[in-house]
Amino acid sequence: MKMDAIDCIMTRRSIRKYDKKEVSKDIINKILAAAMMAPSAHDQRPWRFLVITDKKLLEKAANVYKYHGMVKDAAFAILACGDPSVEKQEGFWIQDCSAATQNLLLASHSLGLGSVWTGVFPRTDRVDAFRKLFSIPQPIIPFALIPFGYPAETRQKEDRYDETKVHWNTW
Amino acid sequence: MKMDAIDCIMTRRSIRKYDKKEVSKDIINKILAAAMMAPSAHDQRPWRFLVITDKKLLEKAANVYKYHGMVKDAAFAILACGDPSVEKQEGFWIQDCSAATQNLLLASHSLGLGSVWTGVFPRTDRVDAFRKLFSIPQPIIPFALIPFGYPAETRQKEDRYDETKVHWNTW
Repeated sequence: MKMDAIDCIMTRRSIRKYDKKEVSKDIINKILAAAMMAPSAHDQRPWRFLVITDKKLLEKAANVYKYHGMVKDAAFAILACGDPSVEKQEGFWIQDCSAATQNLLLASHSLGLGSVWTGVFPRTDRVDAFRKLFSIPQPIIPFALIPFGYPAETRQKEDRYDETKVHWNTW
Repeated sequence: MKMDAIDCIMTRRSIRKYDKKEVSKDIINKILAAAMMAPSAHDQRPWRFLVITDKKLLEKAANVYKYHGMVKDAAFAILACGDPSVEKQEGFWIQDCSAATQNLLLASHSLGLGSVWTGVFPRTDRVDAFRKLFSIPQPIIPFALIPFGYPAETRQKEDRYDETKVHWNTW
């Protein structure tokens, strides 16, 4: 399955309804490999990924807070986490983990899956809840929860270009 | 020009040496459109983009601090900025701008350009310097500076997959 990179970026939408079809481990590994190709400050790669395929754990993750409900129907989910202890310059791990998460979304879309980025960090209530649920040790920080599955909804391409957000040479 | 999305993600490398060839406005607009297709918390799209094509301004931007030197040779650069004032939930603008920046890098790579993400926020010295140089008003925050150009260096594909960073169902 091939999808042009620009088409992939332009047609990716948040998908919150998933088919019951399973996703192969080969596809999950491709998506993880894509995440790890993100750039990072000083190439420190401060990310970690908890892959959740167990149905009972998906249900527990779905109950952490109300906007994560779709997680229970996902084929799998990834809890992207950060490890600030490897940083050479403080504070960039959030950007590095975000770039990795965007790669997760794009790679999964190009492979025919749907996914959605649900925010965890910097909401301390959510960080604490996921830390407790999955026994995630310090200094690792739960960052974002991304459920994946073959889409059971179709969403139209959207044009988000907004020229008022672009400045040329002067503000 | 077409490039498979997975290939794009897996072969993108940071490119710091640029050819003198100009980049068309059509390509710059395609890259900006890709950035604006990033997901964002509550779909608030808290990003702004200052596109720098003026050679004198590129030189000034290159002198802000030592790791930005390659900016003077870029065909153009984009100073990605954030607008935290539009947020419904505090603190997610950094993730949103990071996702947009990753789209900038991937889109440019797929269109034959090289680029590199150079960090600005949260380093207050750099934020202040770019704010002053381009008269960027509050509450906008200079976030990252990305120079672009046709590559004058080739970098090999790298395998960054690290299975020690992946956990399956339990930490």
